This record gives sequence, C-alpha cells and structure tokens, in this order.
Amino acid sequence: MTVRAAVAGASGYAGGELLRLLAVHPEVEIGTLTAHSNAGERLGALQPHLAPLADRVLAPTTAESLAGHDVVFLALPHGQSAAVAEQLGPDVLVVDMGADFRLKDAADWEKFYGSAHAGTWPYGLPELPGARAALAGTKRIAVPGCYPTAVSLALFPAYAAGLVEDEAVVVAASGTSGAGKAAKPHLLGSEVMGSMSPYGVGGSHRHTPEMIQNLSAAAGNRITVSFTPTLAPMPRGILATCSAKARPDVTAESVRATYEKAFADEPFVHLLPEGRWPATASVYGSNAVHVQAAHDPASGRVVVISAIDNLTKGTAGGAVQSMNIALGLPEELGLSTIGVAP
Amino acid sequence: MTVRAAVAGASGYAGGELLRLLAVHPEVEIGTLTAHSNAGERLGALQPHLAPLADRVLAPTTAESLAGHDVVFLALPHGQSAAVAEQLGPDVLVVDMGADFRLKDAADWEKFYGSAHAGTWPYGLPELPGARAALAGTKRIAVPGCYPTAVSLALFPAYAAGLVEDEAVVVAASGTSGAGKAAKPHLLGSEVMGSMSPYGVGGSHRHTPEMIQNLSAAAGNRITVSFTPTLAPMPRGILATCSAKARPDVTAESVRATYEKAFADEPFVHLLPEGRWPATASVYGSNAVHVQAAHDPASGRVVVISAIDNLTKGTAGGAVQSMNIALGLPEELGLSTIGVAP
Amino acid sequence: MTVRAAVAGASGYAGGELLRLLAVHPEVEIGTLTAHSNAGERLGALQPHLAPLADRVLAPTTAESLAGHDVVFLALPHGQSAAVAEQLGPDVLVVDMGADFRLKDAADWEKFYGSAHAGTWPYGLPELPGARAALAGTKRIAVPGCYPTAVSLALFPAYAAGLVEDEAVVVAASGTSGAGKAAKPHLLGSEVMGSMSPYGVGGSHRHTPEMIQNLSAAAGNRITVSFTPTLAPMPRGILATCSAKARPDVTAESVRATYEKAFADEPFVHLLPEGRWPATASVYGSNAVHVQAAHDPASGRVVVISAIDNLTKGTAGGAVQSMNIALGLPEELGLSTIGVAP
Amino acid sequence: MTVRAAVAGASGYAGGELLRLLAVHPEVEIGTLTAHSNAGERLGALQPHLAPLADRVLAPTTAESLAGHDVVFLALPHGQSAAVAEQLGPDVLVVDMGADFRLKDAADWEKFYGSAHAGTWPYGLPELPGARAALAGTKRIAVPGCYPTAVSLALFPAYAAGLVEDEAVVVAASGTSGAGKAAKPHLLGSEVMGSMSPYGVGGSHRHTPEMIQNLSAAAGNRITVSFTPTLAPMPRGILATCSAKARPDVTAESVRATYEKAFADEPFVHLLPEGRWPATASVYGSNAVHVQAAHDPASGRVVVISAIDNLTKGTAGGAVQSMNIALGLPEELGLSTIGVAP
Repeated sequence: MTVRAAVAGASGYAGGELLRLLAVHPEVEIGTLTAHSNAGERLGALQPHLAPLADRVLAPTTAESLAGHDVVFLALPHGQSAAVAEQLGPDVLVVDMGADFRLKDAADWEKFYGSAHAGTWPYGLPELPGARAALAGTKRIAVPGCYPTAVSLALFPAYAAGLVEDEAVVVAASGTSGAGKAAKPHLLGSEVMGSMSPYGVGGSHRHTPEMIQNLSAAAGNRITVSFTPTLAPMPRGILATCSAKARPDVTAESVRATYEKAFADEPFVHLLPEGRWPATASVYGSNAVHVQAAHDPASGRVVVISAIDNLTKGTAGGAVQSMNIALGLPEELGLSTIGVAP
Repeated sequence: MTVRAAVAGASGYAGGELLRLLAVHPEVEIGTLTAHSNAGERLGALQPHLAPLADRVLAPTTAESLAGHDVVFLALPHGQSAAVAEQLGPDVLVVDMGADFRLKDAADWEKFYGSAHAGTWPYGLPELPGARAALAGTKRIAVPGCYPTAVSLALFPAYAAGLVEDEAVVVAASGTSGAGKAAKPHLLGSEVMGSMSPYGVGGSHRHTPEMIQNLSAAAGNRITVSFTPTLAPMPRGILATCSAKARPDVTAESVRATYEKAFADEPFVHLLPEGRWPATASVYGSNAVHVQAAHDPASGRVVVISAIDNLTKGTAGGAVQSMNIALGLPEELGLSTIGVAP
Repeated sequence: MTVRAAVAGASGYAGGELLRLLAVHPEVEIGTLTAHSNAGERLGALQPHLAPLADRVLAPTTAESLAGHDVVFLALPHGQSAAVAEQLGPDVLVVDMGADFRLKDAADWEKFYGSAHAGTWPYGLPELPGARAALAGTKRIAVPGCYPTAVSLALFPAYAAGLVEDEAVVVAASGTSGAGKAAKPHLLGSEVMGSMSPYGVGGSHRHTPEMIQNLSAAAGNRITVSFTPTLAPMPRGILATCSAKARPDVTAESVRATYEKAFADEPFVHLLPEGRWPATASVYGSNAVHVQAAHDPASGRVVVISAIDNLTKGTAGGAVQSMNIALGLPEELGLSTIGVAP
Repeated sequence: MTVRAAVAGASGYAGGELLRLLAVHPEVEIGTLTAHSNAGERLGALQPHLAPLADRVLAPTTAESLAGHDVVFLALPHGQSAAVAEQLGPDVLVVDMGADFRLKDAADWEKFYGSAHAGTWPYGLPELPGARAALAGTKRIAVPGCYPTAVSLALFPAYAAGLVEDEAVVVAASGTSGAGKAAKPHLLGSEVMGSMSPYGVGGSHRHTPEMIQNLSAAAGNRITVSFTPTLAPMPRGILATCSAKARPDVTAESVRATYEKAFADEPFVHLLPEGRWPATASVYGSNAVHVQAAHDPASGRVVVISAIDNLTKGTAGGAVQSMNIALGLPEELGLSTIGVAP
C-alpha cells in the first residue's frame, strides 16, 4: 500500500517534523503541502533542513489543494480544523494535530479555547487503555497535545491500578519548539538560552483539561491536576515530573510491577531499569518515551517521570503512529525509537 | 573597616564565585587562597575569568595558611569544615559554604551524609524569621544549600501564615554549576546541552532535610517535602516550582497579601507584579531572588515559584550577605540585585 | 561629581546593559529613560532583570524628555542620532551607541547604511592609538560596533608594529544579543540553540568598513578585511579569530613582545599567558578583553584571537569607559574586569 | 545481502552514533559490540538513547570477540587499529574511524601523532575526486576526520578548478561531541555553555595535515592551511568557514558554476540557493552537507562555508556511506539527508 499524504500547515514546526518523518516512511508518498501566509514560497526557504523537499512550492490551504489524497494532516491554528475536515469527505483519513477534537467536554473547550466546541475524534495516544481499538480503521484522529502525551503516559498506569490519590501535581519542562515558530520577543534565543521560566501557572494552560480527561478515564473518577509548564533552554523535549499521594499499602515493588505490566508490550515506551532516570536527550528526534517511577515513603508520594520529544512522540510521531494503526499498517513503521544523542 | 578574608577551596565553582564578589566588595581585602590538589598552581590557570587575581598562587589548606585573617570562607567538601574551623580560633569569622553545620538533627545528618554530626551554626539565610538576629555578631555561619535557599524563600511565608497544608511538593531545575567542577561523564557539555534530566528522585537528595527543617520551623510543625531536582541545560540558576494544598478560605488575595508583607522590606527579594513570573536569566550573577505566587482554585493548591542564581544568592552571595550582617556592615554591601541579562 | 544621565532607547539590549552598569556607577544618577513604541510602559515589564528600576516609566524620545542631563546616551536605530544630538546643545555629553558617527568616509557610510553621512565624532575605543586624547573633554562620543571592538583590539598592535601584510581574514562568532531584541524568526531560541550559522558573508556586514578604518589607521596604509560573522548559540560574547600573513623575520617572540608592549598598561585588556586562549565565558558581563596571539610558521600567518562581551565592552561598557575619560573620571570607574563564569 | 557488523569501541560517541545508524540500516545485522574499560557492562547503562540495544553486553576488544563478522568498525584511540586489523584477516571489511590510516606522509603522521606510521588505506570521503573508485570493493577504509570532511568538501572544488591561490584560511566551530566522551574539566557543561573558545591554534591540530593532503591532491600542488578550530556551545555540528585568495578573472558567476558542477550529482551535498547560508541545525543527525560559496571582490577572496554533523557525515555516517560503496550496496542506504531541526 502506498498512501498519498497532504500536509496543511507545512511551514511550522509541527508540519516540518511531520515531513521529516513522512519522507522516510516506506508507505507514504508526500503530496500537496500548504501554508497560509507563506503560500507561494518554496519549502526550502522555510524549512532548510528538508533539503530533499526544498523545491516544493506551498499551496494555499483549500479544499481543492488538499483533494485527491488518502491522508490529510492538519497542522493548523486551533479552531480551523473543522471547516477544512468537512470539505475533505468521510473517506479521507484526516489527522488533526491541533486541539480542536481532543476534548470531550464542551464547557472545558469553551473555557480554555474561547470558541464553540467542534466535537471529539478518536484520540491518537495508542498506549492509553482502549485507544488502539478506537483508532483502528478510523477516518478521523485527534492527535494529543505534547504535554498531555508525556503526562498521561507517566501517570495513567498509577491511576488505572489505583496506586494513588486523586490529586496529581505535575511540573514539566519543555523545549522552545513547543511554543511554535511565530516570532515573539520572549522566545528569542537571547531570552531563552541560560534561562528557565514558568508560564501558564495556576491551571491556565490549555493542556490541563486534556490531562484531566485522560487520567480521569484511567482512574474511573475525576482527577485534579496542578500543572505548571516551564520553558527550558533547549529546542526540543519534554521532561514531565508527575506525582500523587500513594494509597495505603503501596510499595516500591507494587509501583514497579504496575509499570512493568503497563508497558511490557509497548513498542515506543521504554521503562528504564531501576535506579536510572529519563533524560530528554535520549529521545531527541525519536518517537520513544522513557519512563521511570519511584515511591518516596518519606513524603508518601509516587513520583513518575517521563521524557519525550515534544515534536516527535508529542506531535508528529504520535500522528504517524496513529495513522499507521488507522490504516492497518505496522504501528512502528517509519518511526525510530533511538534518540539523536549526545 | 577593612576585612581581610581568606578562601579555602578557591579553585572550585563556589570559591570562584566568592572571589568574583569579594574582588568588588569595598570593605574586603582578599588574603590567602587555598586549594587541595591544585595547591601550588596560579589561580589564572584554574579560574581564567578572575584575571585581576590571575597571579595568585594557591596555598595548601592548613591552619597556618589560613591564619591572620578576619574572615575565613570554607568552600570544602562536606565533612572537612569542623577540623579546619577548630584550628582558626573563636575570634575569626568562619563562613562555611559546605553542609557541615546546617542540620540540627544529628540523625538527619548521619542518614544523608553518612558521617558524624559536627553541630549547628547560625544559618545564613537572613530572610528567614529570626535569622538576622542569630547572624548579628556571630563568628560562625552555615551558608544554606542552593536548593534550600530557593525553596525556603518560596514557601516559608505560606507556612508562616498558615496558608497551606503540611505536605509540599517541589520540582526544581538547576544549572549545571550546582553539580560542581569535578569532571564526570554525565556533566559533559555534550550530555547536558539540549537535555533535561532528574536526579536524586524520591527524597534522596541531601538538601531535602534542610528544606524540611526550614519550612517546619516556619510552620511550627513537621512539614514533608517531595523534592525532585532536575538538571537543566544552563550553567547557572535555579527555578523552584513549589506547591502545597491551600487551607480553607485561602484566596488569591490572601496569598498575594501574605507575600507582599513577607518581602516588603527585603533588599534582595523581588516579589514580581501580579501576572509576571520569574526567569532565572533575570537574576544571573546577582544576589536577587525573584518570586511569584498564585492560587489555583481548580486543583486547590498554592503555587509559588522562585528564581535564584545558585552560585550567587544560592552560595557565595548568600555567604557575603551573611558576613555583612555578622560584621555589622550594611547588608547589601558589595552585592548586586541586577542580573546579567539577556 | 555626580553626573545625571539619560538613556534614549532603554528598552533594547544595549540600553538595558547600559542601565545595568550605570546602576552601580558611583558617580552616575540615572535620569530619564526613553523608548519609542514602548513609551508609557514601566521598565520592569521590558527589562525584568533591572528590578531596582522596575517602576520607572519610559518617556518618549524627545528633546524635552532628554533635557536637563549631563550625559545623554543614545541607543537608537542608526540614522536617528544626529537629529536628537542637535537638540541637546553643545554642553551635554552625548554618547552615541549607534553607528551614525563612526565612519570617516562618507562613501562608506552611504554604501553600507544607505543614508546621508552625519559626520564623525571622537571614537570610543580608548585602547587605539590616540583615542584617549581625542576623548578627553569631548562632548560627543561615537561608541564602536561590537565586532570592530573585538577585531581592532586583536589586530591593531600587529599592524602598528608592521608585523603583518595588508590583507586580514577575520571570522567571528557572536552571541545572539548582538542581533538585537526585535523578534525575527531566525533568532528564535528554537532556531539558534544547537546551531552555528554565518550571515553577512562576503564583506557585506556593516561593521566591515569600521574595522578597515581602524586597522588602516594603525598600519598607515589601506588594509583589506575579509570578514565573516557567525551566530553562535549563546546570548552574549564575541570570539574573533583574526589572521594575516606574517612579514619576513616575524617570529613567535616578536609577536609576543609586540602584544605585551601594546597592552602592558591597558586596564581592560588581558593578554593571556602563553599557551592559553580566550573564552567568551571568561569575560561574560564584564568590560574585559582577553587576547592571545600566535605565529604559525607552517602557514606563514599571525593568528590573534580576542574575546569580549558584545554588550559590555562591545557596547555599553565601552560607552561608560569612554564617558569616564570624557568627564575626567577614573577610566575604570563602575566597570568590572571579571566575567560571570562559569 | 545481510551484512553482519561488529563495532569495536561501542561505548564512545563515534560508536554510539554508528549504532544509531546501523540499527536502521536495512542490510546490516548488529553483531558483537566491544569496549575497553566498560567491557562487561550493558550498553543501556552507557548509551541510554540506544534503547533497543540496551541489554547488549559489551565484550572486550579481542580478535576472538570480533571474529565471524563481515564488517568490523573500529572506533578506537589512535594507534590501536593496526594491531586489531591484522588479526581480522584480509576478507573482512575493516572500517577504521580513527586516524591511523589516513595520512600518506609518514613524517606528518609521526609529527602530529607521535608514533610509527601504520600505512594508508582507501580514504572514506567518496565525494573527493577518485575516491569512489578506490572504495569500491576494498576491504580496508580509513574514515576521514570530522574537520577534514567539512573543510575538504568546502574547498576541493575551488582548488580542483584553479579558482584560488595556494594559501587557505579556515576557522571552524565544532560541537563538543567532537572532543569525545572522556570527562575533562574544560568540557563540562558549565564550562562550554555560553562560551566560544579556540584550541589547537597555530597549525597544531592533528587534522591539519589531513586537510592539506586532500586539498593539495585536488590542486595538484602543495597547499597551506591556517586552521583554527573552536569549541561551540552545542553538542553536535561543524561550521567551517574557509577562504583563499581568488585568482585573477574569478567572478561570483565562475565560483557558482564551479560548485554547481562539483556537487550536481552528489546525493549528500546540498549546495544552497544563492543568498542562503548553511546552519548546522539543518544537518543535525543527518549525513547531509550544506555548502555555500561567495566571491568577495573587496577583499579579493573566495569564501566557502560548509555545515555537517561531526558525528554523522563527519564520522559514523561517512563510515556507513563508504561501507555501502565497498560492499556494492546503494550509497545512500540507511542514511538520512534531513536534519533533526529545529
């Protein structure tokens, strides 16, 4: 099977990462690439690392330009995916890398995104309970946010197994590519190099309800998450430090056993040997997730830390992994589990 | 008053930072500099940024070499300060930048440091309740650890005012200089650039009991701290993200009022305007502490974030500030509150 | 003497660095701060590291707002200084940190800056032959560009002593703050971290004629410079690697002797001991210049490398140093020679 | 064809990068991995990014452990390859990633490496004139050094076409992985982040004679190279800025035409469109070489800049590319031309 794929929003970081992956995917042929303000330009001027595609001219993002493909990836600003998806017809696989179809609760959507709720599509985090079944054969995929990917994979086993109480605390450090390619003063290299800084403190980050949705589903009841994202001086990567109060009788052994079981058959999740902890460098540019968990008896908490590449497993790699499942291809096709390190 | 100061351990990062500060301190004359394996070398070969002191030859760390000074700063590996201090006599101001005299509880010391408890000296974090009184006129100062400095300043007002419950969760990111100058493979530039990684997870970091000691004193009862330190790709700086469950009736206003009151007269602590958050770059190379606090009603937690330079306020700057108090000098003398940014 | 100083352009990187230095200058009182699009805002929102000045409100850049000061520093886009300076009167010391009054040759100015030549002011690089005499008592100072500072200090001794041929080759690496604070996509942290890239290749960088002017003056005849600037993944610093073909009979000893003599009495230039080479970290945030020179007999070239902080010695520190001379103050007043390292 | 490959020196950076590439090479099966001081350990403890190989145990580097493979890659300290290669027999393809068999001139070897010359093997830089013919079917390959790869590819077309004079000037910036994984104080993250520094100035770097050998071969006469390597604050990448005096009648057009012709059919070399310059980020983790050339009439020089990943095209990728040629496989097999950016 050769799949013809279009990418709407090819000039941004998510679109660029997706093209890096699709260019080596053995069953994908890259079709139309579109952009908004950059339509008409050559890709090489915007994504110089994509040299083999340098001469591709960006089309405007229209139903016409996206027609005639088996898969259409949407890397658009939130709120724009529904209108495009409607025009693509029910037989095209539409993979939305934006937020529009992630949240089930319309009130959450309206509160955090400030527009009308578009609906909910099968959720592209295959490692969550039940996710693969929902993705198999689907024509619509909502790719998770980068932080919810890292946090949900770290904590869902603890919630599914009943190891921890309902209140989670998450502090995550992200590389700057998570903030996108739009030029803003606080994202200048001069500002971010040598500096750590938080943002969206106090539960205001848009990824918060998505984490809550995933963890509540795993737990079977409503979880709260105190989420603090921080900007780290690196281009890529998320390190999520997650914890919750251990329930009685939880031990280091029961924590370890829970995580070993949860990830035993996962091709992309690597539970590290005991005593070793994740580093974002180890997953740089790969679809791998490195995880470690510990029980801290003195504070009474279970601490779980995960590392992902926010652009790969956190966005474009997760999109390809989910596409593979939806199309019936081997889930790992075209995806690496080895980071570019050091 | 001109104070003659010696520095034991001048070849490391703490010693180098101290010398950077002492070189511009208007009341200090730099005397003997000592080292262990580097004794006999010129300082310029080891600390090339200290050009005005480049020709100073490092003496061995002995009672003789350190004699004849008004102040002796000890930047030694833990466990070595007591023996040196004893030989210096009771009239010399000894400022220990190591851990030896920080902890009051001998069992804590033995558990985390694995040697016999040496005792407790007045604690060099002047902003803590009662600390200035203990430092005034003292001849012995225990300079706090870098993480306890950042975390205690972030959380003690909340505990002193009874805003939060007894269980704190702290995730802190530190620049690599916090790990010292000894060459270890995991601290190579190739390993740390582009990477975030945790260490000492699960309550095993040696700074944990020190934080608990400080916060418990502020609260008046035993506090637990779940502490996760992470290594960030930057040479300096600590960003501490601290939270605890809010007590009933706590509001954004009561949190703000508590922190405004706590830091109103503090020369080095800058409570940021509402809506703005600390960045480590803003305090780079300075003795300033930037702090912001928020109440997150959805998760029920108070979140407080502080930024310091681990080598300045977190080590050498805190040492100079405490020395100033002990000697009756103006507390701010020789110390900057403006970071080197961008 | 207390000097009242205004800063026009206080919201940018040059203005911010200048304020960091002026805030600790013992003879300066900071007066009006102005901005263009940021007029009306508080400085703290734009320069969070300048906490002691956080509540200062930025005035518009007008003759009125700048009146009543002893010194006015101009950190404006090129082409704007002449109009402002004219309105300030001949008794005010005007220190232009822009390019407007650096070049003597009107044709050079027009070619590289595309506007009419405004004239030439005494050049604020005191270490050059004759510069201090021109600066003493002057009311107008043209602060050099950052690259010309690093390159001229590296090469003028070799040209003044006749050690090298007329064709110099310079490759310099600069931190990103040299490119300013305006948000441009190629200066995003995501783009610059982990990357080295050249720009202005082939002699097109505006600092090229300024270097040629300085080196030609030292040599007494016209020098050519092949100049390639590169952007390095760091916020500050310039490392300039400069070379030219050695004249006959030049030896390692004659090179060393020339540089020792040239910098023997310079308070800010540190000629490193033989065998050691500059690093930008050693001068971070300081007004120091670290220099080393070598003779490579195999290639027949003299290689000289200098390191400066582009914002300090390369801009704001050089401005303060020159102001000190113009006002008859000690040249080193308020300036550090110790970098913030590591 | 499935090729069974052993890697001697699997715990270092070159060995780790090679394994990252071999793990996705469709015709390679990874056999024995060896180490020296780390023999007996699991690879996962030393190369955590190589998760799929984490449980591989490192063997000692002996003839026995390396026996039974079709290809043996040597990533050993210089001076050790000859003894190992002799024991492997003439039918095994031995790919030496060290320096031992690169230099033709025994005197050069002895001067720069201080030991007896081992000989010369076919040189693994396929883009050089005649190189592919020498590599086809060979059983011995000397992989070039990282700097000579970047510099030779930048300048050989100019020398082969007679565009420039015999004296080249090269300043190159390298990521820290080029300095290896041995823990040395000056390579600590604290030292390298935020800093640019030169080393091996004045022609003393061991890669200098290798560049001279390659460029002299292209020119047909002896070339001199003034080479200054600098350490940049990034883990990977080399940016080489190379120039030489243009011969009479050289123009921008003749330079462009020469480079277009030289690289027209090269699968890994991407000559950028006019006006755009290489950035190391664009080739991060890939085997691509980005090149641009310019003629600067004012200084009379041709400037050519190349960017490579020092570990990929500069070491392990070049090794795989050359192996492919030696074995008769498609030259691009298993190698990417798209960098991991941003």
